[in-house]
Amino acid sequence: MLQKPRGTRDFLPDEMEQRREIEGRMREVARRWGYREICTPEFEELELFTIRSGEGIIQEMYVFEDKGGRPMALRPELTAPVLRMYVNEGKTLPKPLRWYYFADCFRYERPQKGRYRQFWQFGVELIGVDSALAEAEVIMLAEEILSSTGISFSIHIGHLAFVRSLLSEIPEQEQKRIRMFLDKRDFDGLSEYLTPKGWDDLCTSLIRLTSCRNLNDVFAITGDLPEKARIEELFSILDKTGILYTLDPGIARGLDYYTGMVFEIFAQNLGTENQVLGGGTYRLAHLFGGEDTPSCGFAIGFDRVMVARGDLAPPHRLMAGIAYTPEGRDWALMVAREFRAAGIRTEFDLSERSLTQQLSRLSKSADYALIIGERERENSCVTLKNLRSGIQQELTLPEAIREVTGSEPR
Amino acid sequence: MLQKPRGTRDFLPDEMEQRREIEGRMREVARRWGYREICTPEFEELELFTIRSGEGIIQEMYVFEDKGGRPMALRPELTAPVLRMYVNEGKTLPKPLRWYYFADCFRYERPQKGRYRQFWQFGVELIGVDSALAEAEVIMLAEEILSSTGISFSIHIGHLAFVRSLLSEIPEQEQKRIRMFLDKRDFDGLSEYLTPKGWDDLCTSLIRLTSCRNLNDVFAITGDLPEKARIEELFSILDKTGILYTLDPGIARGLDYYTGMVFEIFAQNLGTENQVLGGGTYRLAHLFGGEDTPSCGFAIGFDRVMVARGDLAPPHRLMAGIAYTPEGRDWALMVAREFRAAGIRTEFDLSERSLTQQLSRLSKSADYALIIGERERENSCVTLKNLRSGIQQELTLPEAIREVTGSEPR
Repeated sequence: MLQKPRGTRDFLPDEMEQRREIEGRMREVARRWGYREICTPEFEELELFTIRSGEGIIQEMYVFEDKGGRPMALRPELTAPVLRMYVNEGKTLPKPLRWYYFADCFRYERPQKGRYRQFWQFGVELIGVDSALAEAEVIMLAEEILSSTGISFSIHIGHLAFVRSLLSEIPEQEQKRIRMFLDKRDFDGLSEYLTPKGWDDLCTSLIRLTSCRNLNDVFAITGDLPEKARIEELFSILDKTGILYTLDPGIARGLDYYTGMVFEIFAQNLGTENQVLGGGTYRLAHLFGGEDTPSCGFAIGFDRVMVARGDLAPPHRLMAGIAYTPEGRDWALMVAREFRAAGIRTEFDLSERSLTQQLSRLSKSADYALIIGERERENSCVTLKNLRSGIQQELTLPEAIREVTGSEPR
Repeated sequence: MLQKPRGTRDFLPDEMEQRREIEGRMREVARRWGYREICTPEFEELELFTIRSGEGIIQEMYVFEDKGGRPMALRPELTAPVLRMYVNEGKTLPKPLRWYYFADCFRYERPQKGRYRQFWQFGVELIGVDSALAEAEVIMLAEEILSSTGISFSIHIGHLAFVRSLLSEIPEQEQKRIRMFLDKRDFDGLSEYLTPKGWDDLCTSLIRLTSCRNLNDVFAITGDLPEKARIEELFSILDKTGILYTLDPGIARGLDYYTGMVFEIFAQNLGTENQVLGGGTYRLAHLFGGEDTPSCGFAIGFDRVMVARGDLAPPHRLMAGIAYTPEGRDWALMVAREFRAAGIRTEFDLSERSLTQQLSRLSKSADYALIIGERERENSCVTLKNLRSGIQQELTLPEAIREVTGSEPR
């Protein structure tokens, strides 16, 4: 028996309805903030992803050749494609650009629980503005989008200037290793790495820095930074708008393309793989042949948000089913058309079984049965049965439609 | 400068909004008919597509290897994946299954106008029922979905039994060639192919058959067929529901997996590449390791529907913009929050320029400007300017929200 590819998923209608419901809430928040959807191709030239991340990333991607022999990759993330698109087609649009996407991405790795080879991201890019207010907007938008999904989460905000200032005299190669330890919160590993080099003080400072939870403590370790006023303004805006967050100077994510503010959001019931969002301020356009352009954005791991929500029932969708005798069929087809025209989800029985069998089946799935036989056809009416209450009444078509639409929760 | 891959597209927000609008209309019609969305992986095991279509199709697909060295293909269409999913996960669900999908597919060929390497399909599969009524439902649903998009089109319906009966004594290999000529309406080619074989009568019958436009004429050529009563019932249902269609006995599409009714829909202003839908009755589940299961469905070429609609402006979306002085900023942030909570798309100015410059920009994109300075902050009010009429008034926040929401067309 043929199976779906390992690490991928099929979605049946119940699950799909839940996903579309949550996707819809995210879209609605983005819309209210003036963000508009864009769409890029499912695959891109391989180079788009290696430019920033180096050849190492090839091992983690699905790579294949185009008709012309050019290497292509299924996109592992959307920020690079969106900025490539901005350079190609968005440069002349009035700035800032407020763009969002909801799209699938691919990673080529061993499948694990909650990590799939095809996964979905809801992301936002704010392009062409460089200010504390812009960064605050992106964080507030992230908070509102995740709130709309109903999950519980905590926001951690940092700034790359903090760690960078302590590492300013450390060679690039060592900086990378140090950031990896910090990213994993592996302080034992950090200490084992730094102590033999005689960098005990640096190690102590880094560990103290990561535990700071207010700006004064941070600046006491780093000294005054050129970015100080901008950073203070960002947090002052967030404080005024009442957003709850944790200052987390230890965030070291993607120092190679983020340039300033960085933030991560963690869901509260996901175990160790609990990060549902990552984002920050970055510059990429110049790498793709455009002008150097400030940008800020984030990506939400949509599948993890769905796991964090837990197994909720899909929203109830009102449904009417049509049961009929052979003599009633043609009138039943007209009734179905009118019910659908009124916006009611209406299933037509295709089993060609007896009325009793049709009704028995409908009682499991539908809210209302429309029973149509010879009498209903002759009188141009319907017999409407409320399958919850059992109440049955003969009505004109407009009456039946009013009865059913009136029962739908708004 | 890096570019998108050849044959693919980027979609900017204006175009994306048009596409989502039409997608939404299609989804709504499917919902009203009781069809529910499913989703399958972007790629599948290569074998899923070669089982039915042979190795030849490999040339037309994007093929790559999975981590385990298994050959994979970006899906060229959705019917095979959906039936694979049905065999894996849908067998125990109560029949019939009414499923739909909206998804992208891939073809690996020279890009042409209106034919892209990544393209979108809106499709429907009705699984587990085998009757004239089921076929009629699928055709009526197709008609209603396409009507909802606003394009003009014509429906052509055929049945494979017609051509099949004339070819019953022709070897399989020749049948395939003959079907290819019929599929292209290439009667000169057909004649050149059949005449040397001494099959002049067959050629004449086939050409006469394809020009028939009513069932009596068809059966006069084919004689009585075992499927006659079923075919007559299908067209009788369609006639009663008032659907406009052309009987087209020459449709020879995909004889290798369609089994009975076949239909195609053509848009009226697309030139030669004008087919926007293809579908019919088929059996696939048994090829994928399931039980032999009757199914019926169609796929709509979404991109061609969008071209057939022409360049329409995206639906107007009401927008409010917030312009403010430094003293008004914190109150402006609160105002933005309340406006968004009321469902109004509200853009916050991030330029940090003068009020005049902010307003000049807003006049190009927004319907309303909310002007907020020191006075508004002190009085906890806003100055609302209708950018169409130029009328400006000082209002409380609830008054301003009422004013803006009241102006939105429903």
